[in-house]
Amino acid sequence: MHQIFIMSVKIKALLKTAPEGQQLTVQGWVRTFRANRFIALNDGSTLGNLQCVVEFEDFDEALLKDVSTGAALKITGRYVKSQGKGQAAEIQVEDLLIHGTADPESYPIQPKKHSFEFLREKAHLRVRTATFSAVMRVRAALSFGVHKFFREEGFHYVNTPIITGSDAEGAGEMFRVSALDAKNPPLDENGNVDVTQDFFGKETHLTVSGQLEAETYAMGLGEVYTFGPTFRAENSNTTRHLAEFWMIEPEMAFFDLNDNMDLAEKFIKSVLSYALDNCQEDLAFLDERYAQEENSKPKLERSEMGLLEKIQFIVDNDFKRVNYTEAIDILRNSKPNKKKKFKYIIEEWGADLQSEHERYLVEKHFKTPVILFDYPAKIKAFYMRMNDDGKTVRAMDILFPGIGEMVGGSQREERLDVLQERIKAMGIEEEELWWYLDLRKFGSAPHSGFGLGFERLVLFATGMGNIRDVIPFPRTPQNASF
Amino acid sequence: MHQIFIMSVKIKALLKTAPEGQQLTVQGWVRTFRANRFIALNDGSTLGNLQCVVEFEDFDEALLKDVSTGAALKITGRYVKSQGKGQAAEIQVEDLLIHGTADPESYPIQPKKHSFEFLREKAHLRVRTATFSAVMRVRAALSFGVHKFFREEGFHYVNTPIITGSDAEGAGEMFRVSALDAKNPPLDENGNVDVTQDFFGKETHLTVSGQLEAETYAMGLGEVYTFGPTFRAENSNTTRHLAEFWMIEPEMAFFDLNDNMDLAEKFIKSVLSYALDNCQEDLAFLDERYAQEENSKPKLERSEMGLLEKIQFIVDNDFKRVNYTEAIDILRNSKPNKKKKFKYIIEEWGADLQSEHERYLVEKHFKTPVILFDYPAKIKAFYMRMNDDGKTVRAMDILFPGIGEMVGGSQREERLDVLQERIKAMGIEEEELWWYLDLRKFGSAPHSGFGLGFERLVLFATGMGNIRDVIPFPRTPQNASF
Repeated sequence: MHQIFIMSVKIKALLKTAPEGQQLTVQGWVRTFRANRFIALNDGSTLGNLQCVVEFEDFDEALLKDVSTGAALKITGRYVKSQGKGQAAEIQVEDLLIHGTADPESYPIQPKKHSFEFLREKAHLRVRTATFSAVMRVRAALSFGVHKFFREEGFHYVNTPIITGSDAEGAGEMFRVSALDAKNPPLDENGNVDVTQDFFGKETHLTVSGQLEAETYAMGLGEVYTFGPTFRAENSNTTRHLAEFWMIEPEMAFFDLNDNMDLAEKFIKSVLSYALDNCQEDLAFLDERYAQEENSKPKLERSEMGLLEKIQFIVDNDFKRVNYTEAIDILRNSKPNKKKKFKYIIEEWGADLQSEHERYLVEKHFKTPVILFDYPAKIKAFYMRMNDDGKTVRAMDILFPGIGEMVGGSQREERLDVLQERIKAMGIEEEELWWYLDLRKFGSAPHSGFGLGFERLVLFATGMGNIRDVIPFPRTPQNASF
Repeated sequence: MHQIFIMSVKIKALLKTAPEGQQLTVQGWVRTFRANRFIALNDGSTLGNLQCVVEFEDFDEALLKDVSTGAALKITGRYVKSQGKGQAAEIQVEDLLIHGTADPESYPIQPKKHSFEFLREKAHLRVRTATFSAVMRVRAALSFGVHKFFREEGFHYVNTPIITGSDAEGAGEMFRVSALDAKNPPLDENGNVDVTQDFFGKETHLTVSGQLEAETYAMGLGEVYTFGPTFRAENSNTTRHLAEFWMIEPEMAFFDLNDNMDLAEKFIKSVLSYALDNCQEDLAFLDERYAQEENSKPKLERSEMGLLEKIQFIVDNDFKRVNYTEAIDILRNSKPNKKKKFKYIIEEWGADLQSEHERYLVEKHFKTPVILFDYPAKIKAFYMRMNDDGKTVRAMDILFPGIGEMVGGSQREERLDVLQERIKAMGIEEEELWWYLDLRKFGSAPHSGFGLGFERLVLFATGMGNIRDVIPFPRTPQNASF
């Protein structure tokens, strides 16, 4: 065949182009090959496959034998109106090159339904399936939506440290980071590990939150946000927890709690809208998958809304703002509390809310996302601003249907003396926080911020059931493969 | 005073607004307070300060005493044409609230020149200076420029794991991550640390690169990139090395080395253009700072171009592409080589290039960014594609004036047998890489990628001299403060 140089084109762009017999080249992987004639080719740019039609009489039989699910191809041909049903256009294949085969006997990703458990073992290949490619494209779009929103709002992106010498954040168990010999670490005169000989000259851990460092930047740049990995060494084997996950933490000088709630609501709506606008095909596919999944559940457990409906509902409706005291009243008087259906019965003000209570408020009582605020001080972190009542703090949590806590935030305590008292009361060593206290000594001002676990947002937006399936390579207890 | 509710406005927006006597509120920090009358207020939204004029006769003396550098203020007043020189508009202060004072005796950031060494000790406050706020705003803009470029090119953002169970990347010393007791770790029957009892059931480290995992995603989604933290436990106390830094790693299926070079060049130009377009004020300020810094150097060591000139030069000019063999010839015949001015004299083909050689090529010989390619296999990593000559690989490095290596990339070896041979020759355990080899067993195809250390780009774009000054909280040997 007379070969001229042709740039290869992306299937996403091609499927939006009118077929006029133009000659072009596409490259991708075989999803299916039917009747020794119809190749469904996918290149990852979009969910849709491109039909490539082979006149098998014109090709070497041995060559076509190697065209099987998973094989990588370069195809040149004419882009024409499709003869068949199911697609508007197709490629009439003139030239076919096999970059790499995929032996059907050993290639694990075959055109059939694989369990998500099985695919987790093949995390290096699972993005070649329709479901995971859709999830990961939506994840990427949501990420961009995050950066776009904050940039347009005038926020500055800040990279807070991953390795931290500060362990005062108190948000759970931390991983140690060390370059010392694990078996025979140097010891000091008291027989303890001599951390002064470690790489950083002190004990270091993986960060559980960039908030405190982000506050230092907010108090200079005004409005900032982080978007980076955070870690928990907690032995939680649930569908909602990861040992390594990505967190978004905006921090704003001169914002009070109301400003903070306004921002968080606007932010979530903006990012979900971005996904709705930019991932129509992937979300329609995931909506369908979600509907099938829900249909396989007992009727009572099924979601009342479809995936797209749920997302649209969030975008279109005001979040209900309820203070903790009201919420406790509602819960105390609720049917499941009175009938002792809750695992943890709400008896009095001050109780910490469990996931069952949050879900009741969101899914049964208000039937909309809820922002709970003004929590009892004793169940919240030291840095949250004390209210004048002396017992509640300016905390807020945003609760989502099916997910529970999506956002946790607060107005920060800006008064040095009050903060010092709280640090003392909580038994934290003040010296550890000298730099954090400096923010209250020099040019202190009201400020606020929140944190959003990114994978929870991806979970919500994709309708997936397990957080391990919305991050490329999940890290959980006993699992750090790849 | 009759107080009505007024939203506070950002100084960046205000400075673009015509002064028409409108009443408004601004909040920020005092940069200077002159003559008990002129407050220069900064809120971090922009480099520029807003002049706020206080008629001191109308205010409490004690209040004005607390208006000092670093204090946080809320000011309400009329926005009017400025009476004085140096600014077009100013605020006539009607109401002044001090959120937080900054005692001049103890507040470290005074309106005078502080050394960068001193400010590194105050990393939680240094963003309140003009220089660091400018650097960090430019850093944030460059970050956004990265995401914007790749999103517009159809790339999908991928979060590769930070904690890795794989140590085959071989890019240097790694930090260990563990949740075991440091002093008394459990031992196995051979007296070694029993890593099966650790959190992940195996030995884990902090990633040195997301490349190998990114490749798995490129082979499904087509074109992907990472942008996340990476780590080196190397004891390098230089102005160019960090133990924790952010890396950008695009990976593209069906790209050969030429496509890879084209993309890298287009990418760098796009991101720098974004900064030029969006950080004019900050870059003009940094350009001025750079000029002063250069002027303090001996004439022979001064840069021939200003900062803005350097950036514009990169944007406007083609990068020179030179293969390694040509480069060696140029270096071997160069004056500093013949006169033995190089510390490492280039004697024969196969020599690894040192920074002095790279700088000679870029700054003296070609006087433009250079892409060197087709390096000897023995000085490059196992995954780079072998050329037909059997001794060079399809590697490429982009060298920048004043910075040295900005980008390192390659076409990846897609042939299973050749890759296995290379892995063996380099003494790497093949079992560690089973999933990486799977990519060559199933639907393998030519593919390429590169890595760019983000802080090196920020260093170049800001004209700063030390990499510790372009990341909020630098991690280096003996330093993990904050």
